[in-house]
Amino acid sequence: MAEAPDPSFASDNVAGASPEILEALTEAARGADAPYGDDSVTARLGEVIREQFGSRAEVLPVFNGTGANVVALQAASPRWGAAICSASAHIHRDEGGAPEKVGGVKLLPRPAAHLGVEDVREELRTQGFVHAAQPTVVSLTQATEQGTVYPLDQVAAVADAAHAAGLTVHMDGARLANAAAALGVDLRTAVTDVGVDVLSLGATKNGAVGAEAVVVIDPDRVPGIDYVRKASMQLASKQQFLSAQLVRMFGTDLWHRHASHANRQARRLGEALDRCPGARLARDPEVNAVFVEVFDEVAAAVRTRYVCHTWEHSDEGHQVLRLMCSFETTDRQIDDLVALVRGVGATD
Amino acid sequence: MAEAPDPSFASDNVAGASPEILEALTEAARGADAPYGDDSVTARLGEVIREQFGSRAEVLPVFNGTGANVVALQAASPRWGAAICSASAHIHRDEGGAPEKVGGVKLLPRPAAHLGVEDVREELRTQGFVHAAQPTVVSLTQATEQGTVYPLDQVAAVADAAHAAGLTVHMDGARLANAAAALGVDLRTAVTDVGVDVLSLGATKNGAVGAEAVVVIDPDRVPGIDYVRKASMQLASKQQFLSAQLVRMFGTDLWHRHASHANRQARRLGEALDRCPGARLARDPEVNAVFVEVFDEVAAAVRTRYVCHTWEHSDEGHQVLRLMCSFETTDRQIDDLVALVRGVGATD
Amino acid sequence: MAEAPDPSFASDNVAGASPEILEALTEAARGADAPYGDDSVTARLGEVIREQFGSRAEVLPVFNGTGANVVALQAASPRWGAAICSASAHIHRDEGGAPEKVGGVKLLPRPAAHLGVEDVREELRTQGFVHAAQPTVVSLTQATEQGTVYPLDQVAAVADAAHAAGLTVHMDGARLANAAAALGVDLRTAVTDVGVDVLSLGATKNGAVGAEAVVVIDPDRVPGIDYVRKASMQLASKQQFLSAQLVRMFGTDLWHRHASHANRQARRLGEALDRCPGARLARDPEVNAVFVEVFDEVAAAVRTRYVCHTWEHSDEGHQVLRLMCSFETTDRQIDDLVALVRGVGATD
Amino acid sequence: MAEAPDPSFASDNVAGASPEILEALTEAARGADAPYGDDSVTARLGEVIREQFGSRAEVLPVFNGTGANVVALQAASPRWGAAICSASAHIHRDEGGAPEKVGGVKLLPRPAAHLGVEDVREELRTQGFVHAAQPTVVSLTQATEQGTVYPLDQVAAVADAAHAAGLTVHMDGARLANAAAALGVDLRTAVTDVGVDVLSLGATKNGAVGAEAVVVIDPDRVPGIDYVRKASMQLASKQQFLSAQLVRMFGTDLWHRHASHANRQARRLGEALDRCPGARLARDPEVNAVFVEVFDEVAAAVRTRYVCHTWEHSDEGHQVLRLMCSFETTDRQIDDLVALVRGVGATD
Repeated sequence: MAEAPDPSFASDNVAGASPEILEALTEAARGADAPYGDDSVTARLGEVIREQFGSRAEVLPVFNGTGANVVALQAASPRWGAAICSASAHIHRDEGGAPEKVGGVKLLPRPAAHLGVEDVREELRTQGFVHAAQPTVVSLTQATEQGTVYPLDQVAAVADAAHAAGLTVHMDGARLANAAAALGVDLRTAVTDVGVDVLSLGATKNGAVGAEAVVVIDPDRVPGIDYVRKASMQLASKQQFLSAQLVRMFGTDLWHRHASHANRQARRLGEALDRCPGARLARDPEVNAVFVEVFDEVAAAVRTRYVCHTWEHSDEGHQVLRLMCSFETTDRQIDDLVALVRGVGATD
Repeated sequence: MAEAPDPSFASDNVAGASPEILEALTEAARGADAPYGDDSVTARLGEVIREQFGSRAEVLPVFNGTGANVVALQAASPRWGAAICSASAHIHRDEGGAPEKVGGVKLLPRPAAHLGVEDVREELRTQGFVHAAQPTVVSLTQATEQGTVYPLDQVAAVADAAHAAGLTVHMDGARLANAAAALGVDLRTAVTDVGVDVLSLGATKNGAVGAEAVVVIDPDRVPGIDYVRKASMQLASKQQFLSAQLVRMFGTDLWHRHASHANRQARRLGEALDRCPGARLARDPEVNAVFVEVFDEVAAAVRTRYVCHTWEHSDEGHQVLRLMCSFETTDRQIDDLVALVRGVGATD
Repeated sequence: MAEAPDPSFASDNVAGASPEILEALTEAARGADAPYGDDSVTARLGEVIREQFGSRAEVLPVFNGTGANVVALQAASPRWGAAICSASAHIHRDEGGAPEKVGGVKLLPRPAAHLGVEDVREELRTQGFVHAAQPTVVSLTQATEQGTVYPLDQVAAVADAAHAAGLTVHMDGARLANAAAALGVDLRTAVTDVGVDVLSLGATKNGAVGAEAVVVIDPDRVPGIDYVRKASMQLASKQQFLSAQLVRMFGTDLWHRHASHANRQARRLGEALDRCPGARLARDPEVNAVFVEVFDEVAAAVRTRYVCHTWEHSDEGHQVLRLMCSFETTDRQIDDLVALVRGVGATD
Repeated sequence: MAEAPDPSFASDNVAGASPEILEALTEAARGADAPYGDDSVTARLGEVIREQFGSRAEVLPVFNGTGANVVALQAASPRWGAAICSASAHIHRDEGGAPEKVGGVKLLPRPAAHLGVEDVREELRTQGFVHAAQPTVVSLTQATEQGTVYPLDQVAAVADAAHAAGLTVHMDGARLANAAAALGVDLRTAVTDVGVDVLSLGATKNGAVGAEAVVVIDPDRVPGIDYVRKASMQLASKQQFLSAQLVRMFGTDLWHRHASHANRQARRLGEALDRCPGARLARDPEVNAVFVEVFDEVAAAVRTRYVCHTWEHSDEGHQVLRLMCSFETTDRQIDDLVALVRGVGATD
């Protein structure tokens, strides 16, 4: 009887949850605490976030990444605002139109995966033109959906251009931990110091059960964000259970250990696959995503055992697969996958 | 040094989480599973829900009660729809305007805590009148914010009137377990058999870490609800962790044990308080809320030790307090609170 | 062959258009002018509005009253705002839910037709409570849907209470001309001097073809209103044709002549009906609406010839009719209607 | 003293209004009529539209083009819908984000000015993918913002592809009259016969004071559109004044006379400019827009006397100007403009 294909390399959100996170949940479960964020765990989270991001930083735990993004974009935009983003951004392609439907925030998608100063300048041409939704936010994804990492000076340059024109800088950091680990910097360096005003901080893909946060670096830029979170259905009654995950993740080195592991395993997987016949790395893994070009028959063989996404098709009988590693990817899992690929390639 | 007041009787969402729920989370945390609801735990949840609510029932786990309500109201309403509800309903008073802001669903609040057939009829007067947002949903809360329980025949009568006019029946069941336990009926009898079309099913207030669901009884009435949930930011990536809580809660008798306990403790607390000098029950507890009228000095004394809500002020030096019991309210907690009230009353 | 019933007394929006307004349109039609409000007629309108409402006043012509109201409410409210209004307000009952659907502005309806300071105070109880849509605007209707006029000191008192709490004061002035004429004051006295921040200024019901405006008294309270108007689909390309109507209406005494005529005819009609057997005035007409209580058979007879609204039914065989006069109601029309009523009453 | 530059060639919405339209308004102004579309003129408009577009066609007059588009897109889309359009479409670039803000309709912009079957197919790849706003409408602009006309068979092919996938076809016909005149076909051929389901029908740019309409070809595809129009603030109280303009425009040959005149003058202007030194047609005018490439000094000289838009800059000292003709562009106006250009060119 055929087993269901293994989803382990399909995405980093197929992973289970870290034992340390479960332990934190269990500790938080003991006894009554005030609801809706007035609890003691959330108070501790505030300290953790200030330690990580600076003394003005504020934190609003939310349920998921789309929630974090849509709360942040709304709070950073007046009614007539629009957000400049990459056409490949999660907010544009993978959030069911929530920014527009929930917040009325029009998106201004740009072809580049990494936004540059020229993308901001181009969209600013409609600034003050009453017929256009006004660009009021620039949203950068760090790390990107393509598994790439913005150089810090590029984030800083985009932020400078945005600020000079009165715009607010949002970072979608669903995989911020992977980016910071790859860059070898702490979170403040990756976010606060390069001019980000409001951050969607991810934990779920990095080993949490389910917890994300909006981290406000510059509170003046997101007035009323508490009300926005509530009206966006992202205020948890038993918030201590979100905060407990985030405290464990960012109040210890857990975020870094998990992200480094995932990144390292991706490099390991990538290098091993690149040595297989019938496969070659499409580009060096920067974080935890591996893009490998394989012959179609290799892809077919991989699919008999694993769930995985075809990122691009090419005409000549091969395709690019995306394989993702997570905080719990083992050497054994990598070896098994590589052996499968090597076996097919050798046969050909 | 003064301790912080004890929040234990402030609401049922101040309670921690049940060990059984934590156990279910821990079990679900083992290893990779498909994301966004394609996981094995959610598959099992589908079976549980069909067993409980009938073979056509469908389930969409969501993060919180506001999320469940706003997803349900939107899916049950075309763009021009409006929802008839009680003026005391959670959707009207406690959801930050989310039904209107996220879904454009205008609310048509009625004074009665328990909606009746006449409430539906009155609001139907604008049916077909192009200048009015069209009534398309009736939303009932079971149990209500006032701690009362709709008689089943009243739900059925309202549902009949709604259906006769082409409207959809929504039930906000954040405390459905308490209502069903109080009525001594199973969930199908409390929901499916009385004509509810779409249900917000609560678990968080009844001992979960954080999990609710939209249960669709009549799928024809909520077309596209999967897309609505996604665009409403209520689709979890690691949905197994929501589903695991719901499977444990509704796939066993946990919902009933927890709710019965909370209801019983409320009766116990109410009866004891009613025997204290300076206090009397404002009405018999139907579920897990106790409304007790006390002299202002009693209230003041209670507040030195407990967080609690004043439900009503009266002119003559007394007020009605709301005290809520939960799945984890102990006899000892009740005895301590009663002793405090008795002490103050005796002193006067 | 039966003729269609005469709609002349059904509302003031059934009237045609004033010849003076048509003349203004024809003059504006000569030759090219800049679009979207950069035209010379709109420039002149700016002067007219400053003369009428004060030197800081700004004007944004729009298409209709609902448009004016929804633009004003949105511009005066952040995303999390709500508007306090009468339950009988046009924004609550007759705008198809547009404030909620287009702007996400939750309405907080109060029973009173004339809002008082206590209505504001009552709704302010949720100020700062994150679970409630925040009251940010008070919306008064002058004259009201019931044909009554707010005393100026009541508007001022409500405005003071609103401003003290940081709220913005909106006036729905679809029939402001009638109210000002009835009060015997100019527009500045009726609006600017009593603390209104943003006004929906009506012309259509008072003889225009179709033109209303948002008049901003305090520009600081409605940031970005130009963008809001555009995104609300209320920016006309050939705006000179809206402005021309408004210049003629408010740059001459036309508004006052028309409104005074309508008010006078209503008084005349009311007094005459009050002398008919089987009819009596329900209350003295304050503006151009007449509420007359008649026997059901009188109502039936009136309806054979006229379209008219039953405002209230009473148990004992009579009902209250609403009859409205307009800028073009003639003595002859009144005499005919009165003769009909008198004839039926005499027969009985 | 310097005169203000002449706006006559800046756009077709800078034109005044046709005397025939003013005459129709004046006729409609005589006496009372039922409000909100129950008037006799709107009844006549229904006949006119059925004659032009077929016996199932329905018409909803609205105030402006953005209103027509946003009403149509909303009515054709469930809450989770998205509209495929050209990146240069008016709905994407020039409506202040109204489709997204008012209707939550996400736009899926495609690079091509003329959408093709492949554009539909490409966007259909997300059909059924819950993470994407679902493509439910295809919106074509006829004539386009670039002054081009879709071949009828291309509209039909796109409509077929759209219908095959269950999508609705919307046409933005703000300049439909110009397109139909250019194609030499009647309106039914240009719209109904090629598979359009719902049309935004323009009159304002073609000589009206201000009137547009949503024309519904297939009523099954836009359920509840009456409510949508009302909630979108596009229902006029004195609708007879919108309908009167539309009856005159489409119940006579006025639409064709005006549009043909504008198209002819554009050809005349284009040919004359192409013969001037320092200027050449960028492409042959298909409707009433002329795109002419001129040296920068010619552009500067034109701007001393005329308002006009630079459509594209090129690096080598020249630019493309857009000059638009209207129903009232005279030979004399063209001769004056051409003389100016010729004079500058000759001097160089």
